Amino acid sequence: MSSPPTLALARFVEHSSAANLPAPVVHEAKRAILNWVGCAVGASRHATVSRSLAALKPFMGPPQATVLGRRERVDILHAALLNGIASHTFDFDDTHLRTVIHPAGPVAAAILALAEYRAISGADFLHAFALGVEVECRIGNAVYPSHYDVGWHITGTTGVFGAAAATGKLLGLSEPQLVWALGIAATQAAGLREMFGSMCKPLHVGAAAKNGLAAAFLAREDFTSSLAGIEGKRGFANVLATERDFSAITDGLGETWELLKNTYKPFACGIVIHPTIDGCAQLRNEYQLVARDIASIDLTVHPLVLELTGKTNPQAGLEGKFSVYHCAAVAIIDGIAGEAQFSDARVRDRAVVALRDRVHATADRAIHEDAAQIRIALNDGTVIDKYVEHAIGSLARPMSDDDLVAKFRALCAPILSGNAVEEVLKACWNLDTSDNAGGLAALTVPRD
Amino acid sequence: MSSPPTLALARFVEHSSAANLPAPVVHEAKRAILNWVGCAVGASRHATVSRSLAALKPFMGPPQATVLGRRERVDILHAALLNGIASHTFDFDDTHLRTVIHPAGPVAAAILALAEYRAISGADFLHAFALGVEVECRIGNAVYPSHYDVGWHITGTTGVFGAAAATGKLLGLSEPQLVWALGIAATQAAGLREMFGSMCKPLHVGAAAKNGLAAAFLAREDFTSSLAGIEGKRGFANVLATERDFSAITDGLGETWELLKNTYKPFACGIVIHPTIDGCAQLRNEYQLVARDIASIDLTVHPLVLELTGKTNPQAGLEGKFSVYHCAAVAIIDGIAGEAQFSDARVRDRAVVALRDRVHATADRAIHEDAAQIRIALNDGTVIDKYVEHAIGSLARPMSDDDLVAKFRALCAPILSGNAVEEVLKACWNLDTSDNAGGLAALTVPRD
Repeated sequence: MSSPPTLALARFVEHSSAANLPAPVVHEAKRAILNWVGCAVGASRHATVSRSLAALKPFMGPPQATVLGRRERVDILHAALLNGIASHTFDFDDTHLRTVIHPAGPVAAAILALAEYRAISGADFLHAFALGVEVECRIGNAVYPSHYDVGWHITGTTGVFGAAAATGKLLGLSEPQLVWALGIAATQAAGLREMFGSMCKPLHVGAAAKNGLAAAFLAREDFTSSLAGIEGKRGFANVLATERDFSAITDGLGETWELLKNTYKPFACGIVIHPTIDGCAQLRNEYQLVARDIASIDLTVHPLVLELTGKTNPQAGLEGKFSVYHCAAVAIIDGIAGEAQFSDARVRDRAVVALRDRVHATADRAIHEDAAQIRIALNDGTVIDKYVEHAIGSLARPMSDDDLVAKFRALCAPILSGNAVEEVLKACWNLDTSDNAGGLAALTVPRD
Repeated sequence: MSSPPTLALARFVEHSSAANLPAPVVHEAKRAILNWVGCAVGASRHATVSRSLAALKPFMGPPQATVLGRRERVDILHAALLNGIASHTFDFDDTHLRTVIHPAGPVAAAILALAEYRAISGADFLHAFALGVEVECRIGNAVYPSHYDVGWHITGTTGVFGAAAATGKLLGLSEPQLVWALGIAATQAAGLREMFGSMCKPLHVGAAAKNGLAAAFLAREDFTSSLAGIEGKRGFANVLATERDFSAITDGLGETWELLKNTYKPFACGIVIHPTIDGCAQLRNEYQLVARDIASIDLTVHPLVLELTGKTNPQAGLEGKFSVYHCAAVAIIDGIAGEAQFSDARVRDRAVVALRDRVHATADRAIHEDAAQIRIALNDGTVIDKYVEHAIGSLARPMSDDDLVAKFRALCAPILSGNAVEEVLKACWNLDTSDNAGGLAALTVPRD
């Protein structure tokens, strides 16, 4: 019989060694960090970040760590909070498709802040990142989908474990301390799906990073918790989910890596709309489509698409991310759906609204979540169509390293100089040989 | 039709006026604050507090507020955390019996920290306290018992709303901001019953205070949340409980005060053991009982007593609080069950262990939670018994002001000089006429 899940994860984290991390996992960790830094820097001036900073600034500690993309320096707990918030503000970060966890945010925000506070080699940093993602996604695997269906924002609830595990490893916690750290994480697991569409959604990621980091520091001082935070009768998995499978935590632990199943968004919105955007953009480019020639656009999509993104008449930029109609329209007009396509101005643009009103969507259970059928009727009577089996950015059609670099440059361009962007990129790709992983953060600070 | 609960609570908090708070509510607020300060000062040197402080000290902000009973000054968010932790460490704080919420902790820890940061009159302080308790306990009433039965530590999960509401009032938030503050609170609601018996149980109280206080500051900067944090489809009440009754939130809001249903513990352990301790102490005093004369003690108690406090062989002081056997033994030997009866030494004391081993307990659904039947057989063949219908400290037999003062003095004696204790007591009783409620905190700092 295997160990109970909490103990098994603690032992795994304690005994795992950076030297034995497989090369593909190291490379995927770099891709994930690079994507995450780009998202955080890109959103660093957003009101969600500025208001958090303004609200909590009077209570922050010493200037220990960087708020990515900004000049303020704050204590590491608040750096974890703010960088976690920023990285999920555009909803443009990574996705572990099996659980819809956005794995990088809680883990990377916590360990990067820690790496500015005490020197951590790039190899240890990438290893801790992989461990954190592993813990977080395995706990997610054990409780998904019932946990998500109940109404939990799974990135917030499992992210706190990932942050605690990764920072616990870097702090050199003992096995009992790691068990406590996971328990302290369990009892802070929070975040409701009710908050989607508000500033609280990215807050969940930041809070997970901050609370997980604090959990590791508390455990280091022998602050105790239950020894069965995950599997106990009134522990995380029993209280926050209606079904659970602990073998998803323990089976093959240390042999397989969830990080290899990570995906990256090419478009700055919920992943369920990606097949639609992908297909519309492909049709646009193949047929040189112009909005005024289009009579109607008919989408056939999985029912979840309309449940999550069925807003027909978005008025704010953020609402555009929850409108498959808006996304189809900008994919035709602009050919892309980056952050610029989700500004308040863009969702209210007359030409976008006019085309959006000609988009119709039908839910069909026969269509996979990752697929979409698009049919466009032109004013001249022509009908063209496209079936997208797997959207770009999916595991079947992953973003290449070059795609990720292009996305990174586009995200950082409004914040950093071209030279600075290339420096940060270089630091991300060279993380595995770096003596000081935390040095990466300072490179994102704008210079005069 | 009444307003949705989240909006109703926001409006109630916005429109309530200190001048209209009924005199009995003002007095009960003073009793609750006094009891709470005593618990926090009494536990201020406990490892739970010292370890939290040691773990998080490097990341704390400016010295804005007092850690009660200690010389350290910390930022107000951490003061709320640490004082919330301290106040629940002995499990000796107040209880709202209908929900088993310990109402004072999350609210008082948050507003006292705030009152050290910006001047707040005693009248406004007591009013905000009553509002916070009202919000917290009404939300508790709406989801108890299903919420508790699922496994949530209800003081943690509802306390964050109370802290947000009370501090939101003191910060002068607008109605929309109060709605957001409650939403930001909802999405941080956390704390698992699995943690009972570990340092995480008091952590829940501190985290609720800290997160609720931060929620109010975030909302003041227009950090947005769902507008239906409590009642939304994927909001607090639907996700964290299997049954709910929103009329318990809205009915009679502003007309009745949950604070008037607050109770205070005479004994430093879980409330379900109180009838047993009360009855054993009464028998001891009536018959001048001595342990060596006792052949056996037979308890008949509600099943919850054994479920929560059925430890037959506690080894650590904290475990003694979860042992009805230990409690019966010390009630006979010492006549009381204060914090001194729950030291590591006391639970391992040979005479206590010897008597404890002669205590037997039987669960009986016919006995009320607040009652106990005690039957003691003496070595000479005599049998004496006592039926306790309501324990001392219950609503039916409340602690008097004098009882609360005696408890306060006993709690503070190991920490503060006699003069200092009386000064703090005076400050508590005079809160309603104070110009500066926060001044109370500094009086608890030990002087050389």
